[in-house]
Amino acid sequence: MRLSILGCYSATPRTLNNTTSQVLEINNHMFLIDCGEGTQVQLRKHKIKFNRIKHIFISHLHGDHFFGLVGLISTFRLLTRETDLHIYGPKGIKEVVTLQMKLADSWTNYNLIFHELTSNTSELIFEDEKVEVHTIPLDHRVYTNGFLFKEKVGDRKLNVRAAERANIDVAYYRKLKQGFDVVNEDGVTIKNETVTKAGNKPKSYAFCSDTYYKEDIIPIIKKVDVLYHESTFLNKHEHLALKTKHSTAKQAASIAKQAHVGTLLLGHYSTRYDSLERFKEEAQEVFENVELSDDGKTFEF
Amino acid sequence: MRLSILGCYSATPRTLNNTTSQVLEINNHMFLIDCGEGTQVQLRKHKIKFNRIKHIFISHLHGDHFFGLVGLISTFRLLTRETDLHIYGPKGIKEVVTLQMKLADSWTNYNLIFHELTSNTSELIFEDEKVEVHTIPLDHRVYTNGFLFKEKVGDRKLNVRAAERANIDVAYYRKLKQGFDVVNEDGVTIKNETVTKAGNKPKSYAFCSDTYYKEDIIPIIKKVDVLYHESTFLNKHEHLALKTKHSTAKQAASIAKQAHVGTLLLGHYSTRYDSLERFKEEAQEVFENVELSDDGKTFEF
Repeated sequence: MRLSILGCYSATPRTLNNTTSQVLEINNHMFLIDCGEGTQVQLRKHKIKFNRIKHIFISHLHGDHFFGLVGLISTFRLLTRETDLHIYGPKGIKEVVTLQMKLADSWTNYNLIFHELTSNTSELIFEDEKVEVHTIPLDHRVYTNGFLFKEKVGDRKLNVRAAERANIDVAYYRKLKQGFDVVNEDGVTIKNETVTKAGNKPKSYAFCSDTYYKEDIIPIIKKVDVLYHESTFLNKHEHLALKTKHSTAKQAASIAKQAHVGTLLLGHYSTRYDSLERFKEEAQEVFENVELSDDGKTFEF
Repeated sequence: MRLSILGCYSATPRTLNNTTSQVLEINNHMFLIDCGEGTQVQLRKHKIKFNRIKHIFISHLHGDHFFGLVGLISTFRLLTRETDLHIYGPKGIKEVVTLQMKLADSWTNYNLIFHELTSNTSELIFEDEKVEVHTIPLDHRVYTNGFLFKEKVGDRKLNVRAAERANIDVAYYRKLKQGFDVVNEDGVTIKNETVTKAGNKPKSYAFCSDTYYKEDIIPIIKKVDVLYHESTFLNKHEHLALKTKHSTAKQAASIAKQAHVGTLLLGHYSTRYDSLERFKEEAQEVFENVELSDDGKTFEF
């Protein structure tokens, strides 16, 4: 699981600070999460192949999370993309994108499929054999969802030598990987665990931005490997967090602690601060395993 | 008159190429012309004070000319702008901007005044004591206007020593600057030209992008000091210019020659070419005084 931070600052793009966008690589998927202005240029800088992005998840319709979307869709068109593109985001996202295509008289030559979100409870919005994506309803000034990306429990690892010794026909190997006991060539039932071991532990990632401190999300994100939780402010500006429905680094850490996550990744920093270190320090008063996201950083989990 | 090129490449923003946007400083105005994605970051790089921009002119609603507009409007709001902002552009521009503000539940605290354009003949869209702005109807795939910025004929320059010697009361100096003859303290009529000389020659700038080769614009831009005319393609791709309703450098030069302009400024280059020099060479086969615009360049005229 690899996470590339294209941008992690709040409010407005600046010369050296990009607004929210990140790419999660998980099980051969490349999910784009949020798409602030300039995201397409950040994707180029990260040398991410545009065609590998097939799903874009937009948390909410504030500009610093989605003003780059229509430009990206348009660039895909100019590059004669043919691959379907799925867009998940709040109701209204389809109208605003299609209005701009209409005004430009520029329709995509690929399929653009909108999945508009309206629910206030967590829902499964994407699923294939290996990965699930669920919404995480957040508490911000407009309708907002975080997103939970979860690998499914993978196949068990087959010990081929052991299976051969147990005289099992290769036709049964698939069933063994799926965890079933099988009958061998001699008619004897072979217990699954004698020829397989557990597969890789499924990874999980929760993206929670923008949001005020909201304990309701804890059951949804329980024990995720990595939690990205916005931390727009430091403690001394907790009153601003309340007023603008954002979080402090300490509040993000409190959520991480209660949810027993593996790593807490901070981001969505206000640009009023000179250094990011203080965010980490304040979070670590509550929860030890904290990382600072920053534009251009890539994390391997 | 100073022109700052924020971006002058066609189609999509890239790591080193920005889409169309430029700032024209003329007679204390700072006019923003077109606003591709990333324009607000380019404005910061050029250290242009956001508050000095009071008028934005959008040629047409293709993304590479206006996808940065809503972000700029939003950033002005976040910076608690109070100054009115006037936006001139094709019909539809108000709907698309206000829809995005509605979805974000983020309305500007300053006045946002839209001037939607629909005419197919040149019209006066802005005027004050010193400057006029007229549209230049262009021929592109969607409804498009160029813009002609013209200083008005300025005040005559008063020779104060001569006026004193001629025994003219200071109360008449304003009238002298306006070109009138006046009566002096002795009741004698003083000819204006004996105490004044002509003021600065009024400057003019025509922005023409995007457009196919269109001779109809020649009377409108006749004898402008500077003509920015798009030159998306070189000669060898003239068939693409025809197909996509863009121009070649040579076609731009032909317009410049017929209109007897001072300087031709090329731009809106396709990124398929390795070097810009060839654009200049092909244009100079027809018209001598050619300059190449490029991102970050500033021209003083």
